[in-house]
Amino acid sequence: MTEQTCGTTNIAGVSFSVYPMCDGFVDIIKDALKEVDTSKVYMKTDDVTTTVRGKLTHVFDVTKATFMHAAKTGEHVAFQATYSLGCPGDSSGDAYMAEDEQTINTEKVKTMKQPVGAKFSLYPLGGGNYMDVIYEQIEAMKQHVTVSSAHYSTRLDGEAVSIFDGLERVFTATVEGGSSHTVMTVSISANSPSHKGGVFNE
Amino acid sequence: MTEQTCGTTNIAGVSFSVYPMCDGFVDIIKDALKEVDTSKVYMKTDDVTTTVRGKLTHVFDVTKATFMHAAKTGEHVAFQATYSLGCPGDSSGDAYMAEDEQTINTEKVKTMKQPVGAKFSLYPLGGGNYMDVIYEQIEAMKQHVTVSSAHYSTRLDGEAVSIFDGLERVFTATVEGGSSHTVMTVSISANSPSHKGGVFNE
Repeated sequence: MTEQTCGTTNIAGVSFSVYPMCDGFVDIIKDALKEVDTSKVYMKTDDVTTTVRGKLTHVFDVTKATFMHAAKTGEHVAFQATYSLGCPGDSSGDAYMAEDEQTINTEKVKTMKQPVGAKFSLYPLGGGNYMDVIYEQIEAMKQHVTVSSAHYSTRLDGEAVSIFDGLERVFTATVEGGSSHTVMTVSISANSPSHKGGVFNE
Repeated sequence: MTEQTCGTTNIAGVSFSVYPMCDGFVDIIKDALKEVDTSKVYMKTDDVTTTVRGKLTHVFDVTKATFMHAAKTGEHVAFQATYSLGCPGDSSGDAYMAEDEQTINTEKVKTMKQPVGAKFSLYPLGGGNYMDVIYEQIEAMKQHVTVSSAHYSTRLDGEAVSIFDGLERVFTATVEGGSSHTVMTVSISANSPSHKGGVFNE
């Protein structure tokens, strides 16, 4: 269990996957990765998930960009991520903490229009006074996206870029609120046939 | 946040998705669901995830069976789930707690051979004395599957049925160890092209 090896640095990380639901999924993933500048993060892909580690803002920057470039193909693309801060586990990504805060993928994706449905859950495992800041950030999200409650999560509907930016803000606020180990799970669905009339039992 | 509305019943639940990476993904999901008996659980699918609620053993039974029936197509199928016990949120699934413990999908899937790669993380959010039981259960898993550590998770390689059964046992042990709110995330990959030589940068 990673809980046993929590460290003291504030390196953030994510374990995430992009799932294009089409025969050409390999090319979509490869093409998306080609468009993303990953020079400011540690990144390793295996057959189950991709791990990204570094400063929190770059972790969000890289995951957001990878999803945006995959979703722009118009195929049904799902995104699943567990963001984490406070349990580094090992030191393979520590060198990337020397990078500056300037995100390098924002410019390319910030004007992309991509409506999505998303669900997120925030698990502050390490104490702190964060509930007020979480609620403030969720209130702030309502200016840009539709917020509703769902089983085991909070549902967000709107533009993908706004949703990623809102998620980064609520995660940051939780950490700044004193949570020493913060975990957030995110599921996003783009271009789902369900959005165009519902093929499943909704 | 669901953390604010934790209840007192021991209803378990999961938010999960099955992602067939092929053009025929809708049929694969629909066909898999047709094979699964969901009569002992509350189940609701929307465009982002599917929620299942009821007794823990039926929640695992239904998710395992859905994955197994999707993966047997031979297509690259990914599975992502967040299992939860201790934060019911609402009462829409409570009636299903009256069901008996007899699983109804096990028989059909228990002899299916389906090698997979998996990662799981266990987050006991509600106190308790569970670390010893967790380690015992992970040790017990080693009789059936390969266990290794990964970033932010524990990696399991082996037969899908053994992995699901091991996950159910470690989750149950954590709850019985006194964790009043337990969350477990699981990612599974079946029939990945990476398993047959590696199309990604492994």
